[in-house]
Amino acid sequence: MATGSFFKRIIGDFVRPSRAAGRPGRKAREAMALCESLISERGEVSGTSLAREVLSECQQLPDAAWAPFFDLLATGFSPAPEEVRGAAEAWLGAATAENLARLQEAVESPRQELFRRLNMAPGGTAALIAMRQRVLAGIRTNAHWKSVDADLAHLLGSWFNRGFLTLQRIDWRTPAIVLEKLIAHEAVHQIRGWDDLRRRLESDRRCFAFFHPVLPDEPLIFIEVALTKGMSATVRPLLDPAAQVDDPGRADTATFYSITNCQEGLRGISFGNLLIKQVAEEIGRQLPRVQRYATLSPIPGFRAWLAEARPRIERLPDGAALLALLGRLDASGWHRDAKDSDALRSLLLSLCSRYLVETGSDGEPADAVARFHLRNGARIERLNWLADDSDQGIQRSAGLMVNYVYDLEQVEKNHEAYVKDGQVAASHELRALYRACPLSRSAAKV
Amino acid sequence: MATGSFFKRIIGDFVRPSRAAGRPGRKAREAMALCESLISERGEVSGTSLAREVLSECQQLPDAAWAPFFDLLATGFSPAPEEVRGAAEAWLGAATAENLARLQEAVESPRQELFRRLNMAPGGTAALIAMRQRVLAGIRTNAHWKSVDADLAHLLGSWFNRGFLTLQRIDWRTPAIVLEKLIAHEAVHQIRGWDDLRRRLESDRRCFAFFHPVLPDEPLIFIEVALTKGMSATVRPLLDPAAQVDDPGRADTATFYSITNCQEGLRGISFGNLLIKQVAEEIGRQLPRVQRYATLSPIPGFRAWLAEARPRIERLPDGAALLALLGRLDASGWHRDAKDSDALRSLLLSLCSRYLVETGSDGEPADAVARFHLRNGARIERLNWLADDSDQGIQRSAGLMVNYVYDLEQVEKNHEAYVKDGQVAASHELRALYRACPLSRSAAKV
Amino acid sequence: MATGSFFKRIIGDFVRPSRAAGRPGRKAREAMALCESLISERGEVSGTSLAREVLSECQQLPDAAWAPFFDLLATGFSPAPEEVRGAAEAWLGAATAENLARLQEAVESPRQELFRRLNMAPGGTAALIAMRQRVLAGIRTNAHWKSVDADLAHLLGSWFNRGFLTLQRIDWRTPAIVLEKLIAHEAVHQIRGWDDLRRRLESDRRCFAFFHPVLPDEPLIFIEVALTKGMSATVRPLLDPAAQVDDPGRADTATFYSITNCQEGLRGISFGNLLIKQVAEEIGRQLPRVQRYATLSPIPGFRAWLAEARPRIERLPDGAALLALLGRLDASGWHRDAKDSDALRSLLLSLCSRYLVETGSDGEPADAVARFHLRNGARIERLNWLADDSDQGIQRSAGLMVNYVYDLEQVEKNHEAYVKDGQVAASHELRALYRACPLSRSAAKV
Amino acid sequence: MATGSFFKRIIGDFVRPSRAAGRPGRKAREAMALCESLISERGEVSGTSLAREVLSECQQLPDAAWAPFFDLLATGFSPAPEEVRGAAEAWLGAATAENLARLQEAVESPRQELFRRLNMAPGGTAALIAMRQRVLAGIRTNAHWKSVDADLAHLLGSWFNRGFLTLQRIDWRTPAIVLEKLIAHEAVHQIRGWDDLRRRLESDRRCFAFFHPVLPDEPLIFIEVALTKGMSATVRPLLDPAAQVDDPGRADTATFYSITNCQEGLRGISFGNLLIKQVAEEIGRQLPRVQRYATLSPIPGFRAWLAEARPRIERLPDGAALLALLGRLDASGWHRDAKDSDALRSLLLSLCSRYLVETGSDGEPADAVARFHLRNGARIERLNWLADDSDQGIQRSAGLMVNYVYDLEQVEKNHEAYVKDGQVAASHELRALYRACPLSRSAAKV
Repeated sequence: MATGSFFKRIIGDFVRPSRAAGRPGRKAREAMALCESLISERGEVSGTSLAREVLSECQQLPDAAWAPFFDLLATGFSPAPEEVRGAAEAWLGAATAENLARLQEAVESPRQELFRRLNMAPGGTAALIAMRQRVLAGIRTNAHWKSVDADLAHLLGSWFNRGFLTLQRIDWRTPAIVLEKLIAHEAVHQIRGWDDLRRRLESDRRCFAFFHPVLPDEPLIFIEVALTKGMSATVRPLLDPAAQVDDPGRADTATFYSITNCQEGLRGISFGNLLIKQVAEEIGRQLPRVQRYATLSPIPGFRAWLAEARPRIERLPDGAALLALLGRLDASGWHRDAKDSDALRSLLLSLCSRYLVETGSDGEPADAVARFHLRNGARIERLNWLADDSDQGIQRSAGLMVNYVYDLEQVEKNHEAYVKDGQVAASHELRALYRACPLSRSAAKV
Repeated sequence: MATGSFFKRIIGDFVRPSRAAGRPGRKAREAMALCESLISERGEVSGTSLAREVLSECQQLPDAAWAPFFDLLATGFSPAPEEVRGAAEAWLGAATAENLARLQEAVESPRQELFRRLNMAPGGTAALIAMRQRVLAGIRTNAHWKSVDADLAHLLGSWFNRGFLTLQRIDWRTPAIVLEKLIAHEAVHQIRGWDDLRRRLESDRRCFAFFHPVLPDEPLIFIEVALTKGMSATVRPLLDPAAQVDDPGRADTATFYSITNCQEGLRGISFGNLLIKQVAEEIGRQLPRVQRYATLSPIPGFRAWLAEARPRIERLPDGAALLALLGRLDASGWHRDAKDSDALRSLLLSLCSRYLVETGSDGEPADAVARFHLRNGARIERLNWLADDSDQGIQRSAGLMVNYVYDLEQVEKNHEAYVKDGQVAASHELRALYRACPLSRSAAKV
Repeated sequence: MATGSFFKRIIGDFVRPSRAAGRPGRKAREAMALCESLISERGEVSGTSLAREVLSECQQLPDAAWAPFFDLLATGFSPAPEEVRGAAEAWLGAATAENLARLQEAVESPRQELFRRLNMAPGGTAALIAMRQRVLAGIRTNAHWKSVDADLAHLLGSWFNRGFLTLQRIDWRTPAIVLEKLIAHEAVHQIRGWDDLRRRLESDRRCFAFFHPVLPDEPLIFIEVALTKGMSATVRPLLDPAAQVDDPGRADTATFYSITNCQEGLRGISFGNLLIKQVAEEIGRQLPRVQRYATLSPIPGFRAWLAEARPRIERLPDGAALLALLGRLDASGWHRDAKDSDALRSLLLSLCSRYLVETGSDGEPADAVARFHLRNGARIERLNWLADDSDQGIQRSAGLMVNYVYDLEQVEKNHEAYVKDGQVAASHELRALYRACPLSRSAAKV
Repeated sequence: MATGSFFKRIIGDFVRPSRAAGRPGRKAREAMALCESLISERGEVSGTSLAREVLSECQQLPDAAWAPFFDLLATGFSPAPEEVRGAAEAWLGAATAENLARLQEAVESPRQELFRRLNMAPGGTAALIAMRQRVLAGIRTNAHWKSVDADLAHLLGSWFNRGFLTLQRIDWRTPAIVLEKLIAHEAVHQIRGWDDLRRRLESDRRCFAFFHPVLPDEPLIFIEVALTKGMSATVRPLLDPAAQVDDPGRADTATFYSITNCQEGLRGISFGNLLIKQVAEEIGRQLPRVQRYATLSPIPGFRAWLAEARPRIERLPDGAALLALLGRLDASGWHRDAKDSDALRSLLLSLCSRYLVETGSDGEPADAVARFHLRNGARIERLNWLADDSDQGIQRSAGLMVNYVYDLEQVEKNHEAYVKDGQVAASHELRALYRACPLSRSAAKV
């Protein structure tokens, strides 16, 4: 890291003038001046007191001051071009270990050192996560903030290494300050207040979360599991606050029905994969009768894909008839009409199997949830008809849900086959559906 | 990070052939093959299981296998030269943010990703610290390990950021597994067993340590403090296991008499500065009557400096007489002979003040302990005659010890003056001694 | 304790025949047989296994079996009359220490030993508390259960000695399993769900509870405190979930607005007195600016007393006018009619002061809450007009509430004067109101 | 409890005048006056402040003041004779439940209420335990303290009910303040410092203790266990600090080699029985391969019994020869002389089996340790020759030790047979030895 000369570069020439003006701009520049101080000599000896001061200043920035602050951060705390140039040329001249070390040092952003020093203040880690959340919120329209994001992501990724996280069971003995975050963050199946939450923490359920020691009140990611006999085929009984509590000792399956990231500022720093596997191991230890680990997952993009697939379907010999059948989906409440839904059932199941299994030009299926689980080495196990008859469920996936199975013996093999060769792991049932799909009649590839 | 092509580079051409041969070499290569696997695709999905396996393999390496292992690590997991070259040339062609990001990625060692993945296994952090300890132990004769050390130091420095450490008081309620590490590591004033330790943890003493949450049984650094009336002038009463326990409520001074790093594998990752200041704040909160924070420190290099200063002394007008006086130090037990010691006293005090205060060409005094405290912003306060009459104390510093004072209001100012202008903070008393020093008659600079 | 001969006495002659019959009776007798076994030799050596068995049996008793079970317990486990007789006669013959010891042993119920052994099982203490709750619920109609209650109360009183309780702060970090008990038990000012509770645990509030180590999820009693500027005069702002959170550092008064016992089975084992004083001390330590500890208390019996006082009022010279004025209370919503309430105000305040201060034949005022606080050494400080305009508040006390002040320097003195001489501690303001009361014109006694 | 009139009785007529005189006597009376105050009205309302004061006063009593203090306690806080008389006569007149309750109340010592109130102060429980320790130390020469002891024992027995104790594993993570108490108290096999202790806490050992929540730093009783293959036959390998650490996973036996009470003030309040059984259960849960729970126990009274048995042996036909053989025990070091020890072996084993198995007029064997384990339901399993060759071992039991086996299925049965019928549970091997004993030739009774 080279801190020597970045002071001169603080007010770069591409900081939007309008932003740097006025009170917010002044506030941003004041905060930035403290930041400079923090990575100077003075910062080194001040212990944590200067870091506290900077943090406090940042936390009081008015909303309008953050954009100019990030502008300054993106410009001012970058590596010094002249040093990068010197080091790059030296290495190109002679690719020695010393020259490599010099180059590594020259290209590291002073921002990283700034963030490391900010982290020394109490609350520093949480503040940096919040800062990244703000950066991410504005990065679309401020492409030049990418370097700020990259530096934050690099550090946070290193600090939130799995080795530093603890897996904790969440139950009714957990502090309310943690539980309320589950209520706030649960994205897949909304938690409707404390009674709903309590049911999800009863003895026939399990909930686990990763925590970092420095953020004991903040679950990073949590997973909700139902202990069931057989794989759950519909989500409603799992979510019913009034459902009877079953004996967990008689369950043979752990159904993972929701996994939720709580920290937007840690986006892209992946824990989900690790969490699923570790929870599976943990449950296996505690409940040896549980033999199967399966998800009950949404298929968020199915209906959208279906809409796009219309031309392809139309081109089939019986295309017109198929489209007519699919047209019934437009009628509100079609799924409550037994005749309609029966007629649609086999067509939708086979089309959906194709949606999940068919890989695109990037070698992966279109569905984001499928990609996540397939990357983790899971297998597509079973499609479930009318598994989620909520408005959203009907809207997004015609009420279909899917079970992915985590067979811990197979996940590595599945993962490699998927990543290297684009092979999608799917059960016999799924493959049969896929082969039966009208769109597959020409060429099947599973 | 670029992992794509490093496999081919594993067996580089400067790995000592002798090392790579035989059983240790084979063991090293086997471990290395697992390491490669860990940073490949497979490592990404295996959760922590592969990391555990690699760790276990490493921990079973025979002693002789570590050198070839580090050789392989130094060669094989370096950035790919062709990618560095491409990225460097691109950046030199156009110094855009994108090209900088590409260059940053190209120069990062795959080793860092390897270490991050190793860290995911239980015990991973401890293993990496131990690994660095081995690297440091052999680095003198294996200069090419520097890159391995640099990568470990970079990661450990980031992970052991102050923000992640907890300050804990050590007392008689602390688990034995922690206390025995104090006994093992105390380097300044050896702890002679559990009774000695217990005395150092009585109510008129304080002991604090930094811990990392992932290593709850391992103090990283600890400091021993005596609560006293006035600054301690001699060390013996502080170390006497049979000394009477005083009322801590009546103390006005906290005398820091020992600070010890416990983790050789964290060498160079500095906590000492932060520990002293935070302990001072903590004591100030608990015991508002304590007004002064001072060390009672050794002067390890004084006699060696004195030997080197002989020619300079000889050149003084009364040089011969002074050397004759200093010659008395050669007689064993001189310090127990009142006449001798009185005669030497003022001469040694003044010479020692010069030793501590005089800065060399690097702008700092020669004494390592002095440099540490002056960098931290402390002030040299008082020299203490016959403060440490142990054999070692007589040998190294003619029995002298020194108090450094931490005035929390002044430390930043002192530090800046020291670092920027080479100004050494010293009390009036010290300055007077310095001026009285025969060597200072020509030019004084304090 | 004499266990030798109680077996013969199990089926005493006054067990209601109807109860001992049928299935519940059989269940009760089976449980009782296990109880006998538990206090026999076998119980002594079985460790806790037999105690677990008995407990499990008891916990499965059908509701109808409890009455016969208590009947058997009341009869069967009483001291053996012949032994009491022998010991009593011996002591009357010679009042020696030995004979006293023999008498003490003879009169102790075997029930106590039974309960002590039951307590050894996991969950035993909770089960005994629950058992006493059942006893108390039926004791009115089963006077012969008094001995069972007395033995349970004696043991629980000893076990829940203040020395074994811990005072714990309740806040939003408290486990949900504890918090839900606050919601369930709060009797004074109902907690309407989790949002209401959260407001009561914000930084300008304090909530403390006593816990016993063996029941970590069960608050025994809790107290709710608002940190305020000045003594609170109305309860509504304290209970408003949307009220702004004030800075606790600026408060000068701790207003205790609710104190609630959670364990019906510990009725009569008093903690309230101790809790108020210890919480006052605790708050004083944490917030030195808080100088006053006051309650904001209901006056539950005022309107009932007022109704009874009608004849006395009628007899006054202006009795008819006064009664006419009081008649306005019968109109619903009188308190929202400014004219009405103003007219009533001084009359009600003075009558209420009389209600609180006037002692009856038992040397205490009629109001139960007043008696509690006066016994604890508090002082009646201030009456608050329209302090509780809830339906219940209007109904019971015409909307009046009262502040009792705990002056820790005075509580012992106040208590003694109250208990020994029936002196009620009251502020000048209260005394003035009392003297102004129409009923006091004849004879005042404060 | 009747507190009304005890004040008058404080200075009873049998307090030794000499004790009540002088400074210690005055101190004792002052403390006693505070005690009276504590159980008066004032004590009821003072919260814990008065209890603290009394406790502090008691803890500052000079040694010489305790005897007069206990004298006063024994006299002054006894039940009021007139009330006991009235209640006794009433009950004799009519043995109603009310009269029984009155009698129970009348005979309870005010001392118990005093102790309960003292217990409310912080440190109260510990102080009462220490007080009982003093009472027990002087009770032989002060028989009138028995009532004080009885009241303390009654309360402590109730408070230290198993239901309130926690079983905790002791290992090297345990706080030093607890570990040093093990070193201090271990009575069976002295712990020679911290290194010795550490070996006893390694992974092939287990150590457990009971704790009461109010005394977290004070183990009440602890047990040391070695995990072994087969029952240990000699104690030396178990005590060797340098012994190799074995794999606990391969052990089939838990050998309990030491059980130690730490609190003299809790004498007679038995935990040992419960501790052994609970530790056996705990080990069984953690290490399912462990199938046998056995002690390796001393036989403290064997040699003394042997000396007393001389006349009986002499009367046997070959009595003279036997005595001559036994005479070899008088030679120092006989056990290191192979010839001697071989000759003695079978004789001593058979005599010792008789010593352990033979019951006296009280229906129990003479050996105190045997009585303890037999009462607990253990079985005498095996005698071990030269199992303890320490001086003490040779002195007390001619080097013999014995294994008692706890078969959890059998302990209740064994216990009942032992307590009711005086039947001693012994292995076939023991019975064979017993039958072979020269003293058994006439009549065997096992």
